[in-house]
Amino acid sequence: MMQIYDWATGPYPARVRIALAEKKLRSSVRFVSVNLRKGEHKQPEHLARNYSGTLPVLELDDGTYISECTAITQYLDALDGHPTLTGTTPREKGMIHMMNKRAELELLDAVSVYFHHATPGLGPDVEVYQNAEWGLRQRDKALKGMHYFDTILQERPFIASDVFSMADITLIGGLIFADLVKLPIPAECDALRAWWIKMQERPSVKNRVTMPEPATAAS
Amino acid sequence: MMQIYDWATGPYPARVRIALAEKKLRSSVRFVSVNLRKGEHKQPEHLARNYSGTLPVLELDDGTYISECTAITQYLDALDGHPTLTGTTPREKGMIHMMNKRAELELLDAVSVYFHHATPGLGPDVEVYQNAEWGLRQRDKALKGMHYFDTILQERPFIASDVFSMADITLIGGLIFADLVKLPIPAECDALRAWWIKMQERPSVKNRVTMPEPATAAS
Repeated sequence: MMQIYDWATGPYPARVRIALAEKKLRSSVRFVSVNLRKGEHKQPEHLARNYSGTLPVLELDDGTYISECTAITQYLDALDGHPTLTGTTPREKGMIHMMNKRAELELLDAVSVYFHHATPGLGPDVEVYQNAEWGLRQRDKALKGMHYFDTILQERPFIASDVFSMADITLIGGLIFADLVKLPIPAECDALRAWWIKMQERPSVKNRVTMPEPATAAS
Repeated sequence: MMQIYDWATGPYPARVRIALAEKKLRSSVRFVSVNLRKGEHKQPEHLARNYSGTLPVLELDDGTYISECTAITQYLDALDGHPTLTGTTPREKGMIHMMNKRAELELLDAVSVYFHHATPGLGPDVEVYQNAEWGLRQRDKALKGMHYFDTILQERPFIASDVFSMADITLIGGLIFADLVKLPIPAECDALRAWWIKMQERPSVKNRVTMPEPATAAS
């Protein structure tokens, strides 16, 4: 059985949990909790799974580790031969990957840097180096990003096209993280706020933390 | 005819130029030069093509812009229905996307931040904000990344598997940038150095700057 190493409430883990639910693959994986608050993701046991020391990581039956949300989503979406999250035509693939990366660069990753560098983050034991000035720049970038995504959602129902995709999941991850760090969607971003309310009603998003019982912490 | 907005010697543009050559698509595109040194990529005309203000950008015949190297590569690789750079099986797709992202995070993007923040970069007119401390951290991360990729290349001939892929192209982009900023591969990284020498002999890599005649600067 495939295993997912993650932390149930984490914004990046949310991306893979949502993808799993959208692909109806929840029951095909076992979750293993890696304690972010204790910095277990930066310890040798986890670094052996993922050089970059991030969550989530997928472990295949043969012991192969696949990290990075985009890579895990590509893997999961291809499993049944009917991709629904990553596109089928060249144009769809291109647009989804562009907006997926843009949602990382301009929102999710920016909020993450803000959290780890300009707030207490995961606490002094885990945040061994902080650069507050850089963190604050990234907060501003994220707020500007929200305005950009608002303009996109004024034009179409989803971020990359007329249908839900991996790019929407990444933007959802960004807004989950923004919520956690108390960075609200600006009042004037009506389209983004309406979209976010709608996305939170999607079962894959709503039930992401409770779905299925995580295994007890590894080792 | 498709157009590529880029800058011939840029490390990110190199990724798409290499992909085009590998896919034998050079003659299907027209190149339009956007002057990085003059900061044309941060001006409104280019920001309308790509919100993030980076190069390269692909323009399709219908006027659609696709930015981000990974997205452009996915698009180009899917055009002929025979992907050779982004994988065909779920496992190949997952591994290629993982190593592609890792080559960005741990080398190419890190070198880029070093260049723009802890060296004169593109000059004072373009580099309106610098954070030298962050830039130097990223330089150290890139050097550590070279050691990591060296260990991978001790085990297999290419970064993601036994065959050349998009992930190799991204690592090549990282080493092109490292060359530009005089960040040599550490002496002890024999496998990475041998791989880099071999990659530079690939026609797609060797001829990337001169291939085909760029159009004169836009507008």
